Amino acid sequence: MLIKLVKDTNFNEIEKFIKNIEKKGFEVTKNFNDNIKILIITGNTEKIDTDYIESFDFVESVKRIKEPYKKANRKLHPDDTIIDISGVKIGGGNFLVIAGPCSVESEKQIIRIAKKVKEKGASLLRGGAFKPRTSPYSFQGLGKKAIDYLIKAKKETGLGIVTEIMDKSDLKYFDDIDIIQIGARNMQNFSLLKEVGKTKKPILLKRGLSATYEEWLMAAEYIMREGNENVILCERGIRTFENEIRNNLDISAIPVIKKLSHLPIIIDPSHAAGNYKYVQPLSLAATAAGCDGLIIEVHDNPSCALSDGAQSLTPEKFEETLKKVNKIREAIF
Amino acid sequence: MLIKLVKDTNFNEIEKFIKNIEKKGFEVTKNFNDNIKILIITGNTEKIDTDYIESFDFVESVKRIKEPYKKANRKLHPDDTIIDISGVKIGGGNFLVIAGPCSVESEKQIIRIAKKVKEKGASLLRGGAFKPRTSPYSFQGLGKKAIDYLIKAKKETGLGIVTEIMDKSDLKYFDDIDIIQIGARNMQNFSLLKEVGKTKKPILLKRGLSATYEEWLMAAEYIMREGNENVILCERGIRTFENEIRNNLDISAIPVIKKLSHLPIIIDPSHAAGNYKYVQPLSLAATAAGCDGLIIEVHDNPSCALSDGAQSLTPEKFEETLKKVNKIREAIF
Amino acid sequence: MLIKLVKDTNFNEIEKFIKNIEKKGFEVTKNFNDNIKILIITGNTEKIDTDYIESFDFVESVKRIKEPYKKANRKLHPDDTIIDISGVKIGGGNFLVIAGPCSVESEKQIIRIAKKVKEKGASLLRGGAFKPRTSPYSFQGLGKKAIDYLIKAKKETGLGIVTEIMDKSDLKYFDDIDIIQIGARNMQNFSLLKEVGKTKKPILLKRGLSATYEEWLMAAEYIMREGNENVILCERGIRTFENEIRNNLDISAIPVIKKLSHLPIIIDPSHAAGNYKYVQPLSLAATAAGCDGLIIEVHDNPSCALSDGAQSLTPEKFEETLKKVNKIREAIF
Amino acid sequence: MLIKLVKDTNFNEIEKFIKNIEKKGFEVTKNFNDNIKILIITGNTEKIDTDYIESFDFVESVKRIKEPYKKANRKLHPDDTIIDISGVKIGGGNFLVIAGPCSVESEKQIIRIAKKVKEKGASLLRGGAFKPRTSPYSFQGLGKKAIDYLIKAKKETGLGIVTEIMDKSDLKYFDDIDIIQIGARNMQNFSLLKEVGKTKKPILLKRGLSATYEEWLMAAEYIMREGNENVILCERGIRTFENEIRNNLDISAIPVIKKLSHLPIIIDPSHAAGNYKYVQPLSLAATAAGCDGLIIEVHDNPSCALSDGAQSLTPEKFEETLKKVNKIREAIF
Repeated sequence: MLIKLVKDTNFNEIEKFIKNIEKKGFEVTKNFNDNIKILIITGNTEKIDTDYIESFDFVESVKRIKEPYKKANRKLHPDDTIIDISGVKIGGGNFLVIAGPCSVESEKQIIRIAKKVKEKGASLLRGGAFKPRTSPYSFQGLGKKAIDYLIKAKKETGLGIVTEIMDKSDLKYFDDIDIIQIGARNMQNFSLLKEVGKTKKPILLKRGLSATYEEWLMAAEYIMREGNENVILCERGIRTFENEIRNNLDISAIPVIKKLSHLPIIIDPSHAAGNYKYVQPLSLAATAAGCDGLIIEVHDNPSCALSDGAQSLTPEKFEETLKKVNKIREAIF
Repeated sequence: MLIKLVKDTNFNEIEKFIKNIEKKGFEVTKNFNDNIKILIITGNTEKIDTDYIESFDFVESVKRIKEPYKKANRKLHPDDTIIDISGVKIGGGNFLVIAGPCSVESEKQIIRIAKKVKEKGASLLRGGAFKPRTSPYSFQGLGKKAIDYLIKAKKETGLGIVTEIMDKSDLKYFDDIDIIQIGARNMQNFSLLKEVGKTKKPILLKRGLSATYEEWLMAAEYIMREGNENVILCERGIRTFENEIRNNLDISAIPVIKKLSHLPIIIDPSHAAGNYKYVQPLSLAATAAGCDGLIIEVHDNPSCALSDGAQSLTPEKFEETLKKVNKIREAIF
Repeated sequence: MLIKLVKDTNFNEIEKFIKNIEKKGFEVTKNFNDNIKILIITGNTEKIDTDYIESFDFVESVKRIKEPYKKANRKLHPDDTIIDISGVKIGGGNFLVIAGPCSVESEKQIIRIAKKVKEKGASLLRGGAFKPRTSPYSFQGLGKKAIDYLIKAKKETGLGIVTEIMDKSDLKYFDDIDIIQIGARNMQNFSLLKEVGKTKKPILLKRGLSATYEEWLMAAEYIMREGNENVILCERGIRTFENEIRNNLDISAIPVIKKLSHLPIIIDPSHAAGNYKYVQPLSLAATAAGCDGLIIEVHDNPSCALSDGAQSLTPEKFEETLKKVNKIREAIF
Repeated sequence: MLIKLVKDTNFNEIEKFIKNIEKKGFEVTKNFNDNIKILIITGNTEKIDTDYIESFDFVESVKRIKEPYKKANRKLHPDDTIIDISGVKIGGGNFLVIAGPCSVESEKQIIRIAKKVKEKGASLLRGGAFKPRTSPYSFQGLGKKAIDYLIKAKKETGLGIVTEIMDKSDLKYFDDIDIIQIGARNMQNFSLLKEVGKTKKPILLKRGLSATYEEWLMAAEYIMREGNENVILCERGIRTFENEIRNNLDISAIPVIKKLSHLPIIIDPSHAAGNYKYVQPLSLAATAAGCDGLIIEVHDNPSCALSDGAQSLTPEKFEETLKKVNKIREAIF
């Protein structure tokens, strides 16, 4: 932690401050010259709030030198994390494809689509039961019933299932779910993060619409600190000034997260684009950039979908996309 | 709702689509000429997902013409909402000042600061019990105990109290709280919004870091739709490309929200700035722009605060700020 | 153009307004019902300022339905534009690789690097002569002299050359340049756009850091309107809230621009990333997403580069990247 | 300048690097421990490119500690700059009001409006001659002729005049202009900045739509370094994710710039809002936040304005706004 002091300052106060910090077990180094006065604090500085430091009058600014996340940090865990999801692996070179409709609409619908996405090459089935919708007047998902239908689809096809949790009180319904998804809007719902951190289930942690890489990894840290290190990061587009597409897929997140963390990262091109026309090029781009998997919305009748039909691929288009994804992986990895 | 069709399109399909929409009780008008083909749908279009419309192949783009929020909409409720908080009013010309520390740290601390902010002119006391912190290694608040201390401070001073809820399972502790705060990170925690919507308590709804005005009003709509129309909007800075200050206070939110909605809007200059030096100018700016109140962090020993000390005003500086706020209100309103 | 009128409005005024618009040769359709009042104007509406329309008191809001660009619009020119750059082609399936140092530093340096990038597979040589630098204290480029060195490198290697123009008064030095580059900071330097529009040279038009697709295509329109339709668009990262990398490469720009426009689009992964470590994954992602080419910074001694050394690939790393780029293209196109 | 080194690194290389830096006259301090290895460079570090430092393999990251601007830096020039514009002052407590139409449309129009804004309280007259427009199909300004009309208006009213320059080749027409404006889109047109830096005229430097405070001050530095220290900064709204208004006025810019720099800062509420309805609240907010002046668009017939009519105040509304501005200044300064 680097502290820049204001120009004309009271040295007695600073000495008191330094002693105080040292007493707590940190090391402090002074770099004072005529132009600039700097303190460097080393040790477990993730425990020090920069806000606390900034509140002293003799402090001009504070910058962290060390990342504030530990369990998610690649420096402390150089090897890729590999997560086993009911026999299917992700991370360390294993590529995972999750597909299915935005919402579970009926038992028939989810079983029918599950069979199709399995046939076309998906390893896991997705489907929304509890749906976070911007408008209270939009379809909110079938809830508990949808979870039952997903479990039936799992029995019929053998595909593991992925679905989103919106509130910790619903966790009791997730026993047979293979990956619990935390949505972008809940990325900093810390109560929920702590609760899923107490399970052993793989957690799919979507990046918030305007979350920095550091905030995203700190959200993973919340889960990991409770004992659950099975976190899969998922980039799904960020909010920018551009409105021609719904969100801008942050392709740089792939190499940057791979550098900062050992956790696997997958891409959701469907929510980023908000339009099925862009799903294939974004899937191919993400694959080429080195992501560990994809989560793609597939519906056999997009125009009848109760939500997000505009961004769903047909099973045929999904199959074509997956073939190209595999070709890229064979060509360069 | 305006639908722009693709250039070369199948008219049979469109006629089928139109009939289908009309059957649901909407009115459809066609505007077709050689250059451009447009459909306009009128009626309760907030019930139609634009995603649903976009999923048809003959649709090029969809734009809403009418706002998707109803209960929060100024057009349908032209008069300012006035909310009564245990005898103190906000809205319709009533100005509300909320002050207190970021976190409740002890019974003594909160009672001591409550007395000071009351003496200096605050109408309500704020203090964090459950604290949403980016890092799991930061102080997370005293929780239930802090609520008890707040209630004691209320008894001692008569000030109504404002504190944040982070999870709906904690609602049972909020019986004696006068305003329940929903934090920026939970603005789209829809489970929580619905739950507080079932109470009759005034709700302070902070704007998410990258929430549009429309999304913010839709979050208010979630609360209002459940029967609780006592929603106070709170702008606390948005996330932009600029990093010299923590967030950019969106001053335009004040006149724009006043135009779009009848709900009161207050400003949190402390969280926006993240630095006490900017709290006074931002408070004065917000007052001059016509907001309905301010929520300001005040601590009598900022350097000892367990969180966010850097953004806290001393009681003296708070008093000075409030005097200027009042002078501006006298001068122009 | 869609005009939404305010609720209670004076019909005489509106009728006057409509007649006035019709007199100018536009067609106006009314869609009035109890809930909402809309006018739709059709014709060459790119000639109407939305600002002009919004200035009337009876207007609530205005939205364009038709894109305001014509010459750059795919709808009016369905076929891909193919540009011939001294025998090398781009667009319509032709892929272009431009490489070279950020700045021309000496005759020797540029000739030496030109030979290397040619050997490794580049089709054109880049090198900065006039350098736009954030700081006046940074190296500003060798100017005219650098252009002479570039021309010598061209003679030695046969590679066409690409360099940036910063001011229209320098255009006289660009006679032997094969592609004139307009930098991101000058994307809306309209004087410069008009001037290069009067030449017949291919123009590489970089996207501004926070330019929308529409503004970018309107900048192309400025060039094309003067008679020069040889515009190559170049995405080089946009400004967002994330600061771990210099800019966020907007990968979605590739499929979106391909839909909106017939102009070729290339990607500059070096400036987007600002760090050589991310150049390869971004290059591969861009290729897979379907771009028409890449412009990559290559330096044989990055640590001695006078500018932007941190983002330069070595010739060896450039060769490896290009091999993977070609493998992807063979696999999926 | 703080340099964080990668964990396992070659000490010989680093020693060579340090000697090399020291030879150039900088001071280097080492802070090495088991956890973290840091170098601090002090001296005129604005001359060192962070890119250069980052290009070394043993460097993990680089952060500036000292601001890269000197002449614009408050630390080196603690007193407010006061600029005299033909007898009217700005800075150091002097408040400046500039008003007039977006574009000069005719001699009659500009003289008529000049008289009105003078009567209502403006100190200087604005009016666009060379107009930067997003679309090549929009009105581009009357150019040289408009400058003549402005000069006539100046003679008639005695008001100093402010108008925008778009290209350095037009500088010859600006001899009788009192303040030369650099528009937001040209904030980093470095050729133009250098050229106006060679004059002695006051320069109104608008902030780019997505320019950081540092980039903005570096643009001022370009002008000041050429010898012209009469720079007035102008905030005119930044680009964010919100689209309900044209740009978001960054009110925080006022106190932050006042802290970082000694240059005066004024606010343009008209371009920020893009809608006359928001001009008054934004003007009052900016005044209360402590800006040094306002530049407001005023037109006596907004619906006939050739550009930006929607954001123009009538002379009456301008007068009302100015009265409130003055009341606020009397109340709190």
